Amino acid sequence: MSSASSLTAMRLVRARHSATTTASRLARPRCPAQLRSFSKLSGASTTKRTQTTTGAIRRLPSHFFLRALSGKPLPQRSSWILNFCYRGAAWVGTSLTVFGIGVFAFFAFDASTYKDHPIHGDIDVSKIALNPRRGGSKNLPVADAFIDDDDCEEKRALKDKPRLVILGGGWGGVALLKELNPDDYHVTVISPTNYFLFTPMLPSATVGTLEMRSLVEPIRRILSRVKGHFIRAKAEDVDFSHKMVEVSQLDAQGKETRFYVPYDKLVIAVGSVTNPHGVKGLENAFFLKDINDARMIRNKVIQNLELACLPTTTDEERKRLLSFVISGGGPTGVEFAAELVDLLNEDLTRHFPRLLRNEISVHLIQSRGHILNTYDETVSKYAEDRFARDQIQIMTNSRVKEVQSDKIIFSQKMADGTVVTKELPIGFCLWSTGVAQNGFCKTLSDKLGRSQTNRHALETDTHLRVNGTPLGDVYAIGDCSTVQNNVTDHIVTFLRHLAWKKGKDPETLQLHFSDWREVAQDVKKRFPQAVNHLKRLDKLFNEFDKDQSGTLDFGELRELLLQIDSKLTSLPATAQRAHQQGQYLARKFTRLSHMSEGLRVNEINDGDVDAAVHRAFEYRHLGSLAYVGNSAVFDLGNGWNFAGGLWAVYAWRSVYFAQSVSFRTRILMAMDWAKRGLFGRDLMSF
Amino acid sequence: MSSASSLTAMRLVRARHSATTTASRLARPRCPAQLRSFSKLSGASTTKRTQTTTGAIRRLPSHFFLRALSGKPLPQRSSWILNFCYRGAAWVGTSLTVFGIGVFAFFAFDASTYKDHPIHGDIDVSKIALNPRRGGSKNLPVADAFIDDDDCEEKRALKDKPRLVILGGGWGGVALLKELNPDDYHVTVISPTNYFLFTPMLPSATVGTLEMRSLVEPIRRILSRVKGHFIRAKAEDVDFSHKMVEVSQLDAQGKETRFYVPYDKLVIAVGSVTNPHGVKGLENAFFLKDINDARMIRNKVIQNLELACLPTTTDEERKRLLSFVISGGGPTGVEFAAELVDLLNEDLTRHFPRLLRNEISVHLIQSRGHILNTYDETVSKYAEDRFARDQIQIMTNSRVKEVQSDKIIFSQKMADGTVVTKELPIGFCLWSTGVAQNGFCKTLSDKLGRSQTNRHALETDTHLRVNGTPLGDVYAIGDCSTVQNNVTDHIVTFLRHLAWKKGKDPETLQLHFSDWREVAQDVKKRFPQAVNHLKRLDKLFNEFDKDQSGTLDFGELRELLLQIDSKLTSLPATAQRAHQQGQYLARKFTRLSHMSEGLRVNEINDGDVDAAVHRAFEYRHLGSLAYVGNSAVFDLGNGWNFAGGLWAVYAWRSVYFAQSVSFRTRILMAMDWAKRGLFGRDLMSF
Repeated sequence: MSSASSLTAMRLVRARHSATTTASRLARPRCPAQLRSFSKLSGASTTKRTQTTTGAIRRLPSHFFLRALSGKPLPQRSSWILNFCYRGAAWVGTSLTVFGIGVFAFFAFDASTYKDHPIHGDIDVSKIALNPRRGGSKNLPVADAFIDDDDCEEKRALKDKPRLVILGGGWGGVALLKELNPDDYHVTVISPTNYFLFTPMLPSATVGTLEMRSLVEPIRRILSRVKGHFIRAKAEDVDFSHKMVEVSQLDAQGKETRFYVPYDKLVIAVGSVTNPHGVKGLENAFFLKDINDARMIRNKVIQNLELACLPTTTDEERKRLLSFVISGGGPTGVEFAAELVDLLNEDLTRHFPRLLRNEISVHLIQSRGHILNTYDETVSKYAEDRFARDQIQIMTNSRVKEVQSDKIIFSQKMADGTVVTKELPIGFCLWSTGVAQNGFCKTLSDKLGRSQTNRHALETDTHLRVNGTPLGDVYAIGDCSTVQNNVTDHIVTFLRHLAWKKGKDPETLQLHFSDWREVAQDVKKRFPQAVNHLKRLDKLFNEFDKDQSGTLDFGELRELLLQIDSKLTSLPATAQRAHQQGQYLARKFTRLSHMSEGLRVNEINDGDVDAAVHRAFEYRHLGSLAYVGNSAVFDLGNGWNFAGGLWAVYAWRSVYFAQSVSFRTRILMAMDWAKRGLFGRDLMSF
Repeated sequence: MSSASSLTAMRLVRARHSATTTASRLARPRCPAQLRSFSKLSGASTTKRTQTTTGAIRRLPSHFFLRALSGKPLPQRSSWILNFCYRGAAWVGTSLTVFGIGVFAFFAFDASTYKDHPIHGDIDVSKIALNPRRGGSKNLPVADAFIDDDDCEEKRALKDKPRLVILGGGWGGVALLKELNPDDYHVTVISPTNYFLFTPMLPSATVGTLEMRSLVEPIRRILSRVKGHFIRAKAEDVDFSHKMVEVSQLDAQGKETRFYVPYDKLVIAVGSVTNPHGVKGLENAFFLKDINDARMIRNKVIQNLELACLPTTTDEERKRLLSFVISGGGPTGVEFAAELVDLLNEDLTRHFPRLLRNEISVHLIQSRGHILNTYDETVSKYAEDRFARDQIQIMTNSRVKEVQSDKIIFSQKMADGTVVTKELPIGFCLWSTGVAQNGFCKTLSDKLGRSQTNRHALETDTHLRVNGTPLGDVYAIGDCSTVQNNVTDHIVTFLRHLAWKKGKDPETLQLHFSDWREVAQDVKKRFPQAVNHLKRLDKLFNEFDKDQSGTLDFGELRELLLQIDSKLTSLPATAQRAHQQGQYLARKFTRLSHMSEGLRVNEINDGDVDAAVHRAFEYRHLGSLAYVGNSAVFDLGNGWNFAGGLWAVYAWRSVYFAQSVSFRTRILMAMDWAKRGLFGRDLMSF
């Protein structure tokens, strides 16, 4: 028992000792009188304590600076509350220390980012960059060299590499830049805006859920990986024979200057413009393609709210000012409507007169039977229910006839088939009804004549080469392009290939099942999108072998391929497609560059080099998603889809957070979301 | 010794036990075999262990969930590295838990901020708010009531309170709003912009060191404390007899509508406009008064940089595009020059051609002999040295004659007194040369006629009441006003007061020293700014008692007061002054409201009520500061001043961080500074 009591005393003393030596300095000092009273309990243990302390000091000097290094047990008290307080204080102390070190480190880093003196000194700039020669069919200045070609060693090394010119800094162009191997091409991007815009989040910027600068990334920053060059200018035309792009820019005096930029490979990724659908009065409507559109919308919404507050505004005028009409039920229109209603529900009611919220109306005019009509039906149904709850009126089967300054006129097809002309007062009208070809693409399309038959986009083959241009020179990706999938047109090519192997005439060739399999293989390779429709080859063969001859003749094969053709839809005009096409081109270009030596050795200069080095482009749909007002919908294709409330919103944000273009935009987006939660959206216009 | 060995074993077992029961789950699990081998060391202690464990479970169930609650000592190892790792892991584990709880709490809070359904329902809006009566001298609509007067209980309670109308939402107006007691007045703010702008940081926004939205706060948010009303409109005139402000606003069709807003007390805080100094061609220059100015400057700078990159831009034109000229060496001009050079040194060189940085020139044209001429001379000398290092050319003693689209013409007075006319090419020119009266104040000044003699600002008495208006109705604060300090003009008042007490004629009164002390007391009360010049009353008395008669006569007193007058300078047109004036008015209004009952009882309706309830306004200069390019200068007055490098920049930021208008703007500013450190400024224009 004596041993046990001495043991208890020992334990207490050790606990006090530990508290006085190290942790107490971090948390709270102990009264020495208390310590002494405990020490008196056992003389032996006091001696022991002193020994241990000196031993610890000799072995571990750092022991005194960090609790974590101490080998001593933490003090034990009978009360768990005291224990909790003690341990909590130790944890808070350590955390504050670590936090302090973090803050100090940040300021040390921050201080290192201020530069006083620029690195001056002589700079190599080639004469030809300062005084460009004139040339080309229009005798314009030719930008053979740039003023920053010699700015650093890496750039100098790229001077004699093949010139890759990319027109446009959108999804396609940026995906290409981010995937391209840095050492293979002399890259130039030409675009009228010097930033990349993260378009899927644009509706969020119209009401201030996200700030505009969080959605954009300077092209120059993206270009720095490949040591590329940027020209802020507008592409006007392409001189295919001289391999030069004609670009224009307004100079400081507002006068247009034009010049040529030569290329070895040209990628057209200029995007599209809003489709006016021939409707009158669109000058009274707002668009949502660009960051400036978002700003104008934000200002207009706030302007209307402010006007609605004025004492002289009549009740009728107030209702008109607060009537928001969105024309177009695609993702842009739907997400804008959702964001607008969020703003009105969450922020307007805080500081604006309550009357305003009562008099607001939001209408969405959709030409089809449902909103989000490219999505799965359950998804669009969910969105419609959600909108009904949020008091967004959806007018389906409606076509806008005219937008006037104070009203919109549209015709609606009723359930019984009659068409009724209706009108709505508008304080604000958004026009988001799909895309159309821009002027530059029209110019090229006209120039290429017969090779281009599509009025809406530049036609390319499945290797993304623009039809009608010299093979391997000009590519087109993204909204401005469409991949020609006319399998039937290539039937003769397939058969000629087969006939040549068999030494027969293609027209009279009879295909056995094994021949058909060979043709199908060829089709799959050339048109990857057709793969899904060529899975059951035997079934197709039997189906189209109408005379049950066991062979397919030319006519039967044609029928078969026509059916496949009809099943192949054109690719959607989405960021996803442009992104995949950009990545595809980057991989191909890198491969082309690495194989060019081999090709030269093997004297393969002409012919289908692209096809020789890389597979054809295949689009993989990863799903569509949309924000529908404090809830989000996901359509992952093949019937997989889901929708939900706030958790889906967080999931939706996570997807875009992950897809965002840079670390910078991710941080800014996260900050913006936190800002919205903490302070709400600000309703200021400038 | 046996007791000691048993004790050691006990300690080890206890340590192990502690590790297995709680901490191991937080950090890393221990092998049970190890535990067993330790247990074998002492049979007695094993029994003890079991007892303790069950006891602990019974006493502390929470013991199993948090290491901090455990009374067990942490395990001890001979190696301090192992100890460090173990304790470190425990700390990281706890920290992650706490961080996780924090993140969860934030998301829980964030989730609570999304509102699905607005609170609809019937809203009380008075008929008179929806259909205002007509009245006043111009028979315009009169806003007697607002549509949000009945929005909540607190607003309803204020309906019959005195109407306080504030014109302008700048420093003066906002200081008033932030200091005013919430329950005393029916407050209305009328301003053409619906936000307050933190002007001292505006130069930072021109280059993107700070974002524009971080410098502004919605007026409505500031107004919500006093349950006030906001009208986005422009004050045009005041009908003093009907006590109504005439305001104008463009309606949705761009047509001007005018209406009256009645007041009981009117505060004019409309600020000033940039002083053109009669110089020609200012349409070619940029100003920096408003947030839109900052945006235009930012876009212009980037536009010039982009144009300078074009291959067709000649060398001469590039030099012109990159020639930045700032006219005006006050704080705004100096800080803009500093921020511009920061941008060029820190961010331009990262992604733009190096040639650009070499061809940039920055000039600052100052009419006086030094920049920052209102600061202490050592401070302005420091700033000049700093600018010389940063290659900012300062042209002192220079007056701009004309700004043309591509050059600026100015005359410079050389050291030998000759005046030389010079010119500089300009790609960008900032005009920041002081302030002038705006149109509204000119209208009022003309209307008030003889009472207003200052051409630059509205004259007020020391109680900030506009001279010539009915006493206690109309106040003016900030840049648009000036406090009349003409002590001499009040000499008769002082003497009449004294003579009335003594029953003598003021004109023939001879002042003894005691009388003079009384007069001086009166002067101090009425002109607090004069206090500093009335410290040695005896000395002054002897000095001006020229005939050594021991008394001052009328003429001698007049001389004395004239000398004091000459020493009183007019107050500076700064945010600091406006802020103090706003606070002063708020305190006075609160006091007036609380004393109104007493005044009514005592039948004090007329007379100098303001002077009866509150002291006259006294300006206290707290110092001036300025950013001069990775360093900052502080002039604290009375010869106290300092300047320094980065630490001063952080101090400068701290001052403005503390002065910032709201928690929101503080957080945003901090985020922006961190952004600059992490990602630099983005050079994108939209």
